[in-house]
Amino acid sequence: MINKLFKLAARPTGMAKRTDFSYEEVPVAEPKDGELLVKIHYISLDPAMRGWMNAGKSYIRPVEIGEIMRAGTVGEVIASRNAQFQVGDFVSGNQGVQSYAISDGKGLIKVDPKIAPLPKYLNVLGMPGMTAYFGLLDVGLPKAGETVVVSAASGAVGQIVGQIAKIKGCKTVGIAGGAEKCEYAVKELGYDSCIDYKRGPIFPGLAQNCPEGVDVYFDNVGGDILDAVLTRIRMKARIVICGAISQYNNTTPIQGPKNYMSLLVNRARMEGIVVFDWAPRYGEAARQMGQWMAEGKLKSREDIVEGIETFPETLLKLFNGENFGKLLLKVA
Amino acid sequence: MINKLFKLAARPTGMAKRTDFSYEEVPVAEPKDGELLVKIHYISLDPAMRGWMNAGKSYIRPVEIGEIMRAGTVGEVIASRNAQFQVGDFVSGNQGVQSYAISDGKGLIKVDPKIAPLPKYLNVLGMPGMTAYFGLLDVGLPKAGETVVVSAASGAVGQIVGQIAKIKGCKTVGIAGGAEKCEYAVKELGYDSCIDYKRGPIFPGLAQNCPEGVDVYFDNVGGDILDAVLTRIRMKARIVICGAISQYNNTTPIQGPKNYMSLLVNRARMEGIVVFDWAPRYGEAARQMGQWMAEGKLKSREDIVEGIETFPETLLKLFNGENFGKLLLKVA
Repeated sequence: MINKLFKLAARPTGMAKRTDFSYEEVPVAEPKDGELLVKIHYISLDPAMRGWMNAGKSYIRPVEIGEIMRAGTVGEVIASRNAQFQVGDFVSGNQGVQSYAISDGKGLIKVDPKIAPLPKYLNVLGMPGMTAYFGLLDVGLPKAGETVVVSAASGAVGQIVGQIAKIKGCKTVGIAGGAEKCEYAVKELGYDSCIDYKRGPIFPGLAQNCPEGVDVYFDNVGGDILDAVLTRIRMKARIVICGAISQYNNTTPIQGPKNYMSLLVNRARMEGIVVFDWAPRYGEAARQMGQWMAEGKLKSREDIVEGIETFPETLLKLFNGENFGKLLLKVA
Repeated sequence: MINKLFKLAARPTGMAKRTDFSYEEVPVAEPKDGELLVKIHYISLDPAMRGWMNAGKSYIRPVEIGEIMRAGTVGEVIASRNAQFQVGDFVSGNQGVQSYAISDGKGLIKVDPKIAPLPKYLNVLGMPGMTAYFGLLDVGLPKAGETVVVSAASGAVGQIVGQIAKIKGCKTVGIAGGAEKCEYAVKELGYDSCIDYKRGPIFPGLAQNCPEGVDVYFDNVGGDILDAVLTRIRMKARIVICGAISQYNNTTPIQGPKNYMSLLVNRARMEGIVVFDWAPRYGEAARQMGQWMAEGKLKSREDIVEGIETFPETLLKLFNGENFGKLLLKVA
């Protein structure tokens, strides 16, 4: 058996390109005592991966040059010398961009494909879902009747944020790129409206769809969109900083929010989140979201690209607005 | 009797200049039934005044062209046809940049010069003190042992923030311009250290004086100093946005905090404050701060310039770093 893998070969400048990675095919190792071997089915591609490629302190250590690129994964145990795992178990974890992975079992969580298809464990029941659930509910603190705005509204996190806000009785306004995503956001995800940022400045759409202002803004993109929303926030608004996709590939300094003094004018709050902080409560969120899924209240969409070999190019879909739903690589 | 006053004559571009105001001398009016006449002793000059001169929505309506320039004041009742106020009472309020003012009594608060000298009612017992007290304690939420950094550390608000943080058992690090202010911050206000931003980039000073990072940053200045502190915040840090003196006279767009993603990395919070929100609790703060003053734990300094005629030039001291302590105009 051959393990196909991508290592980080260089720290990218701007968008990551194929030459920033080295693709290798190596024989699959045998699990030693206490270890297990996982055949990876799906690899999660996330905007945060771009940050992990940079040197320097962040919320997690950078991927080192020569290290297999870090990524969330879901796969099947095909050999085990670890009593906790049996052949045939399915597990999610952070096993990286490779087709097979040896593990000592730490950090692996068993998942059940009979409860939900495997891709869901990297989407609504994985990091994006957890991020949406805790970021919105614990930091955004939405109250029924409030207006919640979500950027990257049809993206992995945004799709869940909008639906949870709706379940909580909020008015939801999405921001997404293109008519197709906006239509999906409204018709499938239940957003009350969705602003297409590709059609021009979003100010008019914000004014029209948030006539009373914005109580909660869940920001995945930063840049001009964050600045635009800052002009419409309401008193005591909460801005959840989940990401800044628009800035991750900058070769110039990050664009800081020019309108941040709106926080003062409106006695508002901007707060950053990292999902790992809620790890002890993932189970609670998964149970609640599983119930909403069963009730038909919580949908989620994956954008699945086949072929681990396409990794460098597929990753770029996250940054050029091409992906539609949670982006996954299907290994086989 | 002649009332000397300044009206706003034009909306300034960049720094306000004398020609943005019209100086007038008019006869003092007689109070009508229900009114009183106040001889103003001191006029408060505050960075926020620059914002009030701009058109457009903010936390308070702009001063209109032709309107007497808004300012906090303290003075003496010299005629009264209002049963709530007697000749000889001292009052603080927002009576504007003028030497005499008619009032219907609304918004005036009686103050007692036997308890504290009149200038203190525009300083530690006035808006700057209230801003410091509630901004630090209610939004900054400092805990004993934490590191609190304060910009404009010897300014009207900063001087109080530093001392209250110290009273609460925090390590306090000031940022101020010039050796004299830094020495004052440490020797008189009790800051553990003070970084002189005029000596160059503040990064080394922050690293040296905040080896464990910054838990609370009380920001009065914005710009590069906010960006520098963002690189040093600790997990779950609280940044109180009280003002952005460095940006008020911009003719280019405001400089947004380029390092705001540090909020995400550190799960930190940036929150704006406007002191008026705590008006129902001003009494509580005044009593507590009066007690600290009596115990010798809370000092405050005024920078008093004589002559209402100097208003346009004196105001500029706030923005060029010249003022040292709470800036006041003495009318007589």
